Amino acid sequence: MENKIIFIGEIETPYKTIEQCPRNVSADGPECRIKIYEEFKDGLFGLKKSQKILVMYWLNLSERSAGISSAYGDTQPLGTFALRTPVRPNPIGVGVVQIEDIQDNVIIVKGLDCLSGTKLIDIKPHID
Amino acid sequence: MENKIIFIGEIETPYKTIEQCPRNVSADGPECRIKIYEEFKDGLFGLKKSQKILVMYWLNLSERSAGISSAYGDTQPLGTFALRTPVRPNPIGVGVVQIEDIQDNVIIVKGLDCLSGTKLIDIKPHID
Repeated sequence: MENKIIFIGEIETPYKTIEQCPRNVSADGPECRIKIYEEFKDGLFGLKKSQKILVMYWLNLSERSAGISSAYGDTQPLGTFALRTPVRPNPIGVGVVQIEDIQDNVIIVKGLDCLSGTKLIDIKPHID
Repeated sequence: MENKIIFIGEIETPYKTIEQCPRNVSADGPECRIKIYEEFKDGLFGLKKSQKILVMYWLNLSERSAGISSAYGDTQPLGTFALRTPVRPNPIGVGVVQIEDIQDNVIIVKGLDCLSGTKLIDIKPHID
């Protein structure tokens, strides 16, 4: 167990291929649904509409490495940790979004950037 | 490998016991040193002084569960995902800090909230 990730849910987005995914999270993007598995549902207690949350998810299709690259056609090469590229030692994506609605075990938000079916790792209240 | 976390470095803070750790990251806290292991050092290329980074670390001493609790003596009980408590299914801590200096494979920052020796998972450029 120790340093293994447990998946706590799944994210539904409009994106079926990596090419369709936007480069980053955006507040005015399309609706996405964060579905928490039944066994972790209690953990949602107290989350509220309009609250900002930090969502963490596992980018399972990414190569796991660190180095220097030019991401997305940027002119200047940068190191992995100076980029938001999914190619990194631990392929964890992070986005801050606002809660539009909560329906039972589903949180509705806007503008996540990942493939539909991406596995959820964590949700935390956002701190500025 | 798949859903296993790889540790990419270690964080030095002034805190030797959990009781000493502050509740959250703070911009005016004491100096902390984020040490990247040699094999991941290239990934730092392009990070700059004054830049804000999101730091991700593994809270290995925490119990791994989700539920409803009153953290730190708060009066109102809340679910795990409405709290920043380290007790969560995946014990990953996240903090946004500003780079004070970079010396070879060490990033100097202020105000991280974790125990000294905490393992580093990722660094990303912060997006507002």
